[in-house]
Amino acid sequence: MELITLAHGSGGLESAKLINDLFLSYFNNDILCKQNDASLVNPIDGILAITTDSFVVNPLFFPGGDIGKLSICGTINDLCVSGATPLYITAGFIIEEGFNMCPLEKIVYSMAKTATLAKVKIIAGDTKVVEKGKCDGIYINTTGIGVIENYVLSHQFEIGDKIIVSGSIGDHGACIMSKRAMLAFDSSLKSDCAPLHAVTKAILNASANVRMMRDPTRGGLATTLNELLLNTDKSMMIYENLLPIKEEVRNFCDILGLDPLYVANEGKLICIVSDEDSDKVLEVMQKHSLSKDAVIIGEITADHSNKVYLKTSLGATKRLSMATGELLPRIC
Amino acid sequence: MELITLAHGSGGLESAKLINDLFLSYFNNDILCKQNDASLVNPIDGILAITTDSFVVNPLFFPGGDIGKLSICGTINDLCVSGATPLYITAGFIIEEGFNMCPLEKIVYSMAKTATLAKVKIIAGDTKVVEKGKCDGIYINTTGIGVIENYVLSHQFEIGDKIIVSGSIGDHGACIMSKRAMLAFDSSLKSDCAPLHAVTKAILNASANVRMMRDPTRGGLATTLNELLLNTDKSMMIYENLLPIKEEVRNFCDILGLDPLYVANEGKLICIVSDEDSDKVLEVMQKHSLSKDAVIIGEITADHSNKVYLKTSLGATKRLSMATGELLPRIC
Repeated sequence: MELITLAHGSGGLESAKLINDLFLSYFNNDILCKQNDASLVNPIDGILAITTDSFVVNPLFFPGGDIGKLSICGTINDLCVSGATPLYITAGFIIEEGFNMCPLEKIVYSMAKTATLAKVKIIAGDTKVVEKGKCDGIYINTTGIGVIENYVLSHQFEIGDKIIVSGSIGDHGACIMSKRAMLAFDSSLKSDCAPLHAVTKAILNASANVRMMRDPTRGGLATTLNELLLNTDKSMMIYENLLPIKEEVRNFCDILGLDPLYVANEGKLICIVSDEDSDKVLEVMQKHSLSKDAVIIGEITADHSNKVYLKTSLGATKRLSMATGELLPRIC
Repeated sequence: MELITLAHGSGGLESAKLINDLFLSYFNNDILCKQNDASLVNPIDGILAITTDSFVVNPLFFPGGDIGKLSICGTINDLCVSGATPLYITAGFIIEEGFNMCPLEKIVYSMAKTATLAKVKIIAGDTKVVEKGKCDGIYINTTGIGVIENYVLSHQFEIGDKIIVSGSIGDHGACIMSKRAMLAFDSSLKSDCAPLHAVTKAILNASANVRMMRDPTRGGLATTLNELLLNTDKSMMIYENLLPIKEEVRNFCDILGLDPLYVANEGKLICIVSDEDSDKVLEVMQKHSLSKDAVIIGEITADHSNKVYLKTSLGATKRLSMATGELLPRIC
């Protein structure tokens, strides 16, 4: 079985062979194959959206995806929820000496497949190899570049705006936690990891009154809702009985003492839209397979305390704060 | 002494505090401070140059620089030698649990200072924290975006074209090796780590017949020259007695049995230019402090073997191959 050696990251003949045999064979496109120090792309007409993310998920392979798929979805989704069409992605690999070429090829294949699905080109890359014990298999950084052709997100909330979530929450985080060696047990938990470019496009086509979109990854739904309130003077009311949570996710979280509202998602988005357009947006979302379970979970309220509140099933109102502490490390 | 914890990478309150107190305070600019999922930048008029690089250098601090300075210079230089003006940089941090906030702040300060010097904005970032022993202090990925306003690099060599190197070779790699714990001894070796934006700009202003530029990093001068010959039908002749190598670098390499021609540089460039413009280019380079020791080291020859040859001081001709094997791991 061929293993990654320090030589593969040293910039010499072995590096060149790895690039040619593996990366160029899967990521093949007209821009990358020129192998220049920097890749050149034609002028882009519009505002550019740029985002970067490093992926250190553990384990590397999990039901519903792997670090390769995740590294493309995570970055694409950050572009999409900003209202951009993803165009290009760069990929930086840090690999541990002794890593097996076979899972590496699987990861690279996942990246290529997901990028193709989302119609983005992987146009630049870099590989570093560190000594055994100085990394945990493989870490991947992806940086994405997209274009905003028609910017409509106002980032301004109005009282009565509806808060939509595109489907069940906590799936990714619960799946990853269930697969950690120490907790290994059988379950039907599956990551929701998916690229949301088609969903965001449909939403933006349906309404010119989308205030903001965001993918609730690290920190989960509750933390992301708090982030959305930053720099506003509004509050949110979320209704517990409207929250879509799969039974297996709820049960798993109960066992570990986790709150699904703080558990990461990798293929879900929150959309805040005007009251009058909310049904229209919900309808187009429900037509798309990745957001077929979309529901309205709450609304923007007149309360000026600038906080997220949860109306519980029992009718009580409690504050939903940002996550603190360790949460679930290395979930993405 | 404050230490990095897993909570700093979990996307909750501690992550937000780290971003606000450290990253935003040093990287402060109008784009980054909006803290969106993706950063939005105004349309760029021209061909875009995009490059990515991960930095895993060991040790993190060395004479002449640190991983922070290196992470900005490395990416800026890849843009510059492609003929682009660097505009934006993204920064992805992978930090080991228990890393001290004090060196982290030094590294972030170095990045900010170097970016300001090179007139680039750090517009997006990401921080992940991995458990103790799953990283070696800190790894940094930077992705750079530049614009090519006036593209002149032909990538086509003509017989007689001159090969210029901007100064002494092997400084960075020799410095890093000398500082590795196992080899620690006093020396005057210093990394050449520097951003080359002003040098490349001067070169491109001086001549419309620059064929290609490249920064000879991993693999050193010899490997980079071989890469430059890819997809051409020409050869190169390099003259050993013209190669600028500092005495301390030569002595240090002699002790370790290294060839300075294969040792990394981080503030040097190779420029291949038409014979008739070579004196003019050399002159503008020598006027700039970062390339004051620029010299012509060889030329493109009529030989169709597509190889790099070295004419030794004794008059023999030998082939200079690409580097193979481990070289110097984690030099950048």
